[in-house]
Amino acid sequence: MASTGRRPVLVDHGPPLALLGASLLLGATAMAQSAGGAPAPAADTDEHRIAELVEANHILANEHVVDGFGHISVRSAKNPKHYYLSRSRAPGLVTVADIMEFDENSQPVDQKGRAMYSERFIHGEIFRARPDVIAVVHSHSPDVIPFTVTDAPFQALVHVAGFLGTTPVPVFEIRDVAGPQNDMLVRDVKTAAGLAKVLGDRTVALMRGHGMAVTGPSVPMAVLRAIYTQLNARIETEALKLGKPVFLNAAEASRVDSADRPWEIWAADADRALRGPSQ
Amino acid sequence: MASTGRRPVLVDHGPPLALLGASLLLGATAMAQSAGGAPAPAADTDEHRIAELVEANHILANEHVVDGFGHISVRSAKNPKHYYLSRSRAPGLVTVADIMEFDENSQPVDQKGRAMYSERFIHGEIFRARPDVIAVVHSHSPDVIPFTVTDAPFQALVHVAGFLGTTPVPVFEIRDVAGPQNDMLVRDVKTAAGLAKVLGDRTVALMRGHGMAVTGPSVPMAVLRAIYTQLNARIETEALKLGKPVFLNAAEASRVDSADRPWEIWAADADRALRGPSQ
Amino acid sequence: MASTGRRPVLVDHGPPLALLGASLLLGATAMAQSAGGAPAPAADTDEHRIAELVEANHILANEHVVDGFGHISVRSAKNPKHYYLSRSRAPGLVTVADIMEFDENSQPVDQKGRAMYSERFIHGEIFRARPDVIAVVHSHSPDVIPFTVTDAPFQALVHVAGFLGTTPVPVFEIRDVAGPQNDMLVRDVKTAAGLAKVLGDRTVALMRGHGMAVTGPSVPMAVLRAIYTQLNARIETEALKLGKPVFLNAAEASRVDSADRPWEIWAADADRALRGPSQ
Amino acid sequence: MASTGRRPVLVDHGPPLALLGASLLLGATAMAQSAGGAPAPAADTDEHRIAELVEANHILANEHVVDGFGHISVRSAKNPKHYYLSRSRAPGLVTVADIMEFDENSQPVDQKGRAMYSERFIHGEIFRARPDVIAVVHSHSPDVIPFTVTDAPFQALVHVAGFLGTTPVPVFEIRDVAGPQNDMLVRDVKTAAGLAKVLGDRTVALMRGHGMAVTGPSVPMAVLRAIYTQLNARIETEALKLGKPVFLNAAEASRVDSADRPWEIWAADADRALRGPSQ
Repeated sequence: MASTGRRPVLVDHGPPLALLGASLLLGATAMAQSAGGAPAPAADTDEHRIAELVEANHILANEHVVDGFGHISVRSAKNPKHYYLSRSRAPGLVTVADIMEFDENSQPVDQKGRAMYSERFIHGEIFRARPDVIAVVHSHSPDVIPFTVTDAPFQALVHVAGFLGTTPVPVFEIRDVAGPQNDMLVRDVKTAAGLAKVLGDRTVALMRGHGMAVTGPSVPMAVLRAIYTQLNARIETEALKLGKPVFLNAAEASRVDSADRPWEIWAADADRALRGPSQ
Repeated sequence: MASTGRRPVLVDHGPPLALLGASLLLGATAMAQSAGGAPAPAADTDEHRIAELVEANHILANEHVVDGFGHISVRSAKNPKHYYLSRSRAPGLVTVADIMEFDENSQPVDQKGRAMYSERFIHGEIFRARPDVIAVVHSHSPDVIPFTVTDAPFQALVHVAGFLGTTPVPVFEIRDVAGPQNDMLVRDVKTAAGLAKVLGDRTVALMRGHGMAVTGPSVPMAVLRAIYTQLNARIETEALKLGKPVFLNAAEASRVDSADRPWEIWAADADRALRGPSQ
Repeated sequence: MASTGRRPVLVDHGPPLALLGASLLLGATAMAQSAGGAPAPAADTDEHRIAELVEANHILANEHVVDGFGHISVRSAKNPKHYYLSRSRAPGLVTVADIMEFDENSQPVDQKGRAMYSERFIHGEIFRARPDVIAVVHSHSPDVIPFTVTDAPFQALVHVAGFLGTTPVPVFEIRDVAGPQNDMLVRDVKTAAGLAKVLGDRTVALMRGHGMAVTGPSVPMAVLRAIYTQLNARIETEALKLGKPVFLNAAEASRVDSADRPWEIWAADADRALRGPSQ
Repeated sequence: MASTGRRPVLVDHGPPLALLGASLLLGATAMAQSAGGAPAPAADTDEHRIAELVEANHILANEHVVDGFGHISVRSAKNPKHYYLSRSRAPGLVTVADIMEFDENSQPVDQKGRAMYSERFIHGEIFRARPDVIAVVHSHSPDVIPFTVTDAPFQALVHVAGFLGTTPVPVFEIRDVAGPQNDMLVRDVKTAAGLAKVLGDRTVALMRGHGMAVTGPSVPMAVLRAIYTQLNARIETEALKLGKPVFLNAAEASRVDSADRPWEIWAADADRALRGPSQ
């Protein structure tokens, strides 16, 4: 299984790209085209994490990992028991002003009357169970869901999805925790803790008839994993129809990609979708 | 099966978003980015319903539920036997000026020489048979049609499509009503009444070799159901190839999503597709 | 099989829409949003046909029926043995200035040094064999090609594709005419005549490992048929995996859709893709 | 198998289109709409090749052959042992300033501190083994990968992909060269030489669980082959589900398409995606 060790400095693309997360506010897209040597790493502050979180919301929407539903969170750097998450809003529309802070029980620090995602407990309980996790994506990726409702084993098939591991990704059956009279939503600490238990030390857990939870050591890595989990699902679905696929072995699945290179284009694409061509 | 009880106030996103339906006229997209507490509910007037109907036409086109064909209607608030529907025009191009009023027999109140959808009777007969229904979508969703021409059972598989219910969605075979010498179109009261009978108390009816009819307690809910019926079809098609899927049970399928959150992004996406980026 | 009788006046959307074909030159897209009664029919002149032909090139590219390859032609109104077709250019880029006139042997009336499509003979021989045909599309639609290389029968499954008929669409095997030492291209009168013979009185012929030829009584109808042939293929491919599909019967397949309603949105979408949002 | 003979003058669309590769810098898109006779061939200089290389990066991104990962190179005209390739950057964002020169051992001529693609050796070793190759694409095309992990034979099925040949495209199993303890990346001369050996005299080699390497006698031809390899994969995947497909025979597969016609629209589409509509 891919390593999920913490990275003290999360991304190495430095201050200019770090600001892209807030580019709707700052008008900073032009710098995405600067040719470059390696800039100085950005300080891993909560401001930085929140800027990345806003950009990540847009990227996940633009890459069809989320639609009106689904969300992404980041652990607080200054208070690691807390995390940041948007108010209840479609990810493609999230701005810095929408980001709320939640405590270790997924209660808002200052709600200000805002509606909240009913499933925010997914994030809170994964952050509680997994100190190594800095960011969590919850999505309803259509390509992934067939693997949540059948016995077809879902695991690392393509080299950019080694983080999925070499045994089937675990599937959370909500009936095991909430019983048959459940409503499919992970809307409290107990159910979310059950999901975190199924996740264990893996990077991804599938959710039956619902979607998935994806973890990462940074916002960009969680985004990369969400996108490539979806890609692996799409490819495996076709491969299973053609024959018995050769999956990655342990060595092959242990490599960790950096998210820097794809993040730059995903962010540029998301910004362009929102604001139009940059010239 | 999901509840379809009437909601006296249909949407809770209040006046600003209520105007989005007419945003082509009013230039109101900017407000989609306002951070927000809960605005006061919009009055459920016919003006409000028509504005939502125009926006819904654009959303359904932008989400590929309809192409040049297909349509959506809303029951009149002031005269519940009447309903509103565009003149014969591709949904993606419909404006407020295109909306016509039809009586309980699907005859125009004031035709003004305008061409009409020949299948408007689908709407009229569902409104007659189902007082709880406020909006009806008719579409040719490509992902759904394979389930209309085969015996594969189509039912709620993903949690956002619980409204499809836990037994196969009924399929309307036009030959049963119009005989083998039919032309596939539901172009009169009798054929449409046959479709409404097959629909019964369900939320959706499939139409063999043709498409579907989707109902909702509001325009946004009918839109949400049309989009997620299509999504459930796409996912079930793949799941059936991978194995025997676990479908939702009755409790799981009874939850009703609000359409507010996805409606905001679907409307923003549709507006952007028509008018370009907002900045 | 769907009727392919000639329509002396081909489209009924009248002068404003008739100009859309030349909208890149004329800046006429705004009129697509006019609310409307029925305008007077446009005169069926060669100017009108050529304007529609240019727009059709853009639509077919925008709807992914053609890519860099593929083409569409229209018979001349003033000299029905001749036809119009672009010089050798990707359809999405074709302008009125690119349109060339060809004689009954697919020779250019005035080449002016321009490169020509090597497969223009497809058009010439179909026009020769089928006086009822006014427009011909040749494309490499990816969704259709699986049916050209296997025995799976391709026929009318969805009601908007009744024109495909109730027996399998014929497949042209170029080896039958040109022998095994062929290069897959229909690059002379003899091979094209073989294709026209396989087409017979049908609306569509498939071409093994290559694509299809689609005919229509007008440019918009040929475009509609090309788009919906592709749609029927996509749906039938999935339906065949789910079970044994119920195909249309003869009565159901005999209805002829008008292309007016979808043409308006296809043209608006193609124009917007080329020129950006209209406001 | 398709011929891969060198073309001394690679493209015949002449100076205006030759500049399209640098159109982000030069603002040259408008000329794509010029009606035209045949312009004089462009001189096959390194400037020309680099301009095409930049445009090719954008095309491959826009056609979904590459995402954040993947790359394309071109052999130097003035020093055929050297080649040009972008610094480590997502192809959709590459500019002329990002292009670096590498020697026959894939070492940078003047690194200037820039990060490099770790898999650039793929290019270097194919250029070393195959003097006829002028351009190389490496991608993770999702449609192709199912054929890299199963025994399903992948070969020329559609006439625009004759270059794939009439026997299965070879698959590079990295374990054969690097052993089971590999990390899936071709990050040195030895592994890349193994890939070049599997490629042999073919145009394309698949890479197990990873993607493919595609060669061409020019940048536009390598781009065309990468795009149509992906297309052939998508079509063959569906055809195999419908029955036993008829593949191209040797004569049919020997035809070589020119890339000129599709290149013009691919470039125009890529430019428009980056810069917005041209008017």
